[in-house]
Amino acid sequence: MTRRIVVIGGGASGSTSAQFARKTDRSAEVTIFEREKYPQYSRCALPYLISGKVKDVIEFSEEWFRRNGIDLYLETEVKDIDMQKKVVVAERKGESIEKRFDTLIMATGARPGIPPIDGVYDGERLKRGVFTLRTLDDAIAIKNYSKSIDRVLVVGAGLIGLEVSEALYELGKEIVVVEILPSILPGMIDQDMAEIVHRMIKEKIDVMLRHKVKRIEGRDGVEKVIVEDEDGKEKEIDVQMVILATGIKANVDLARRIGCKLGDTGAIVVDRRCMTSIKDVYAVGDCTEYRDLVTGKPFPVGLGSIGVRQGMVAGINSAGGSMELPEGLLQTRTTRIFGVEISAVGPLSKEIDGAIQGKYRGRTLPHYFPGGEEIIVKTIIKSSGEIASAQIIGNGGALRINTFACAIYKRMKIDEFSKLETSYAPPVAPVLDPMIISADMARYRYERGC
Amino acid sequence: MTRRIVVIGGGASGSTSAQFARKTDRSAEVTIFEREKYPQYSRCALPYLISGKVKDVIEFSEEWFRRNGIDLYLETEVKDIDMQKKVVVAERKGESIEKRFDTLIMATGARPGIPPIDGVYDGERLKRGVFTLRTLDDAIAIKNYSKSIDRVLVVGAGLIGLEVSEALYELGKEIVVVEILPSILPGMIDQDMAEIVHRMIKEKIDVMLRHKVKRIEGRDGVEKVIVEDEDGKEKEIDVQMVILATGIKANVDLARRIGCKLGDTGAIVVDRRCMTSIKDVYAVGDCTEYRDLVTGKPFPVGLGSIGVRQGMVAGINSAGGSMELPEGLLQTRTTRIFGVEISAVGPLSKEIDGAIQGKYRGRTLPHYFPGGEEIIVKTIIKSSGEIASAQIIGNGGALRINTFACAIYKRMKIDEFSKLETSYAPPVAPVLDPMIISADMARYRYERGC
Repeated sequence: MTRRIVVIGGGASGSTSAQFARKTDRSAEVTIFEREKYPQYSRCALPYLISGKVKDVIEFSEEWFRRNGIDLYLETEVKDIDMQKKVVVAERKGESIEKRFDTLIMATGARPGIPPIDGVYDGERLKRGVFTLRTLDDAIAIKNYSKSIDRVLVVGAGLIGLEVSEALYELGKEIVVVEILPSILPGMIDQDMAEIVHRMIKEKIDVMLRHKVKRIEGRDGVEKVIVEDEDGKEKEIDVQMVILATGIKANVDLARRIGCKLGDTGAIVVDRRCMTSIKDVYAVGDCTEYRDLVTGKPFPVGLGSIGVRQGMVAGINSAGGSMELPEGLLQTRTTRIFGVEISAVGPLSKEIDGAIQGKYRGRTLPHYFPGGEEIIVKTIIKSSGEIASAQIIGNGGALRINTFACAIYKRMKIDEFSKLETSYAPPVAPVLDPMIISADMARYRYERGC
Repeated sequence: MTRRIVVIGGGASGSTSAQFARKTDRSAEVTIFEREKYPQYSRCALPYLISGKVKDVIEFSEEWFRRNGIDLYLETEVKDIDMQKKVVVAERKGESIEKRFDTLIMATGARPGIPPIDGVYDGERLKRGVFTLRTLDDAIAIKNYSKSIDRVLVVGAGLIGLEVSEALYELGKEIVVVEILPSILPGMIDQDMAEIVHRMIKEKIDVMLRHKVKRIEGRDGVEKVIVEDEDGKEKEIDVQMVILATGIKANVDLARRIGCKLGDTGAIVVDRRCMTSIKDVYAVGDCTEYRDLVTGKPFPVGLGSIGVRQGMVAGINSAGGSMELPEGLLQTRTTRIFGVEISAVGPLSKEIDGAIQGKYRGRTLPHYFPGGEEIIVKTIIKSSGEIASAQIIGNGGALRINTFACAIYKRMKIDEFSKLETSYAPPVAPVLDPMIISADMARYRYERGC
């Protein structure tokens, strides 16, 4: 009998599930229900669509899905799931669609969190001039609206906040970023590393740390924003646009309704096969949580790279194959903002008991060779002597972080890593790579217990 | 009592030994005897000194050694070692120097192999216009001689042969490279990968594969070279300069004289502490051999990156500290020739029983993001499913090879590696790094036994 697989959500993780399900069982009937009007696009590329660096973010066209035998329903919202009959009920332009399934994949994603700011709404909708950046339509709306304005306030100095700031900066806008925490990129890198990045980019954008947004004012749209520092002192900022980049919330309504177990972070709990607490119901991407390999604690999945890997696993398993994720994940992450490449893997220092670190500022080429660039590498080890995490500022950092990812995954001891044979040739890399020197500094302090 | 450490040879591995010995025991008396007239310089940078890209290859000045309490004797040749009295007898400008030691470090390096070509010598010296590239004086001589000539023949298409070819090409010379084997870089990458590189560079240099040099002709210097193909057909090539780049031979005369065990490759055998078969006599760098981690077979050390790591280990151990190398080494290696970055780690395919490979040609950025470059990644696994080696053509290959080095060192299985969380951000790297896709292709073939 033909296997029927229904995927709810056609983002990267959902579409990858569908693709790998079809690869695993060529006769399976695979259906995707997607609320938006676009086939799979790169959500991570949206800031670059705004700046104009990228012209098209669609990764797989409708034609591609057709050719690969996947039924893709766009602008289609799933209204109900009948677990008794194993039927998904969806709606497209007023028309109801029922689809039977043997296995179901929840890829319902996440939505932006809206902070409780006075004046952020106008009725039930965001005030005119206030935006979030989650969907392709959001990106188009931001790009269009930005044409008529000069000054933008971005709420949140995380990855998305800074990436959208860069995009609008490149369009000639003046940017103020307001961040409640004491450093930029607070979920990505430690404060000391964030301060280095902050110094590198502060000519280009004004980041107000330890400030919160109190009120958005304006009649027909944003006219000014009132921010407040830690002592309650207010400041008025004239801007005509506000972007909210204060994190995401997993979409779990459907999952909750059918009884999928939700975890501590509020997202769907999945096992190594990406199955939820309900047999034959899988979940992938931003609607799920997973265990951090180093701390053992759950984290909400928010990285496309993890979503795609979950999609491969869920797709294969849902179609009768077998594949498992590691017992924990590393959250390898990178970005480039205002020309600065920033990369990290593993938990922040503060999440690691007894963390010992080595931090090294060096160059990507031998000192005598022209063209080398500055790079800053921080290696963090836990009390067992295993590498826990690493953070890098500088070009080539993302590729070096992959080596750390491999080392952390294999629970490599710092004395092993500090002897790793890295590539060396004067025009390519120094005889001891900066990551090796950073690791060796951590090793030295670890062995002396300081 | 003061510990006395004598290092024979002031190249990178010898100098590193001295430096780490002093770091380990601040009161130790550390002496280096070096035959050449320069303090530690980068041998790997010599091709770039010839091209002019690098102005100065000295890594540590005589002043540096003085400041760090290391007695550096330049232009000083060790004539004898009295193992009974523990005395090294050296000679500088006719003057004899005797130095007592507690531990001895042999860092005698290697010399170029001179192939038995008719006409290569003029009496006991190389014919005028014939050069090897091993020392700083060699590089200076090549640079000077090249000023008066237009056409150069390079014997050997290995790393040094191609790097010196590039240097002379950049000086405007016409280059012919003659290689007896069927592909370029034969010790570094597999033939299929070498053919890709060959196609990329052949506009710039003419490499004659499966040819050998039979005779060098000319009265007062090189005038022409006779080469021969596999069928014995001769061809005459007009050139005014010949560079021999046909590999190196370990300098083991002194080691042999005092009874150090030599290995299958003819070089000095050392253990994980870099100690030779004689107690308190260490050896490091190109005069030694070491075990390959993957094949278990001995290989002659010929990489600066290994020499420096051996130097750290021997330096620390010789001064009373304790450090060990891994039981086997990986020979991580890279170069950039004619703008093409080439990187590899682990044995060639032909050295691995039952090798299974995945080869992927992709891009360094997502397809929709501008500025991505082509990259070709080959992952090789052995019959156990562990990664054995990897080879990459393209920018960023050297840094990716470090991740493979880590994986091979930790005996990572291919199904683990193919799920590794690599960094992803549109301006930095694609969601599945090309090395992951290459590994996944290898995994697929491995699991299907093909």
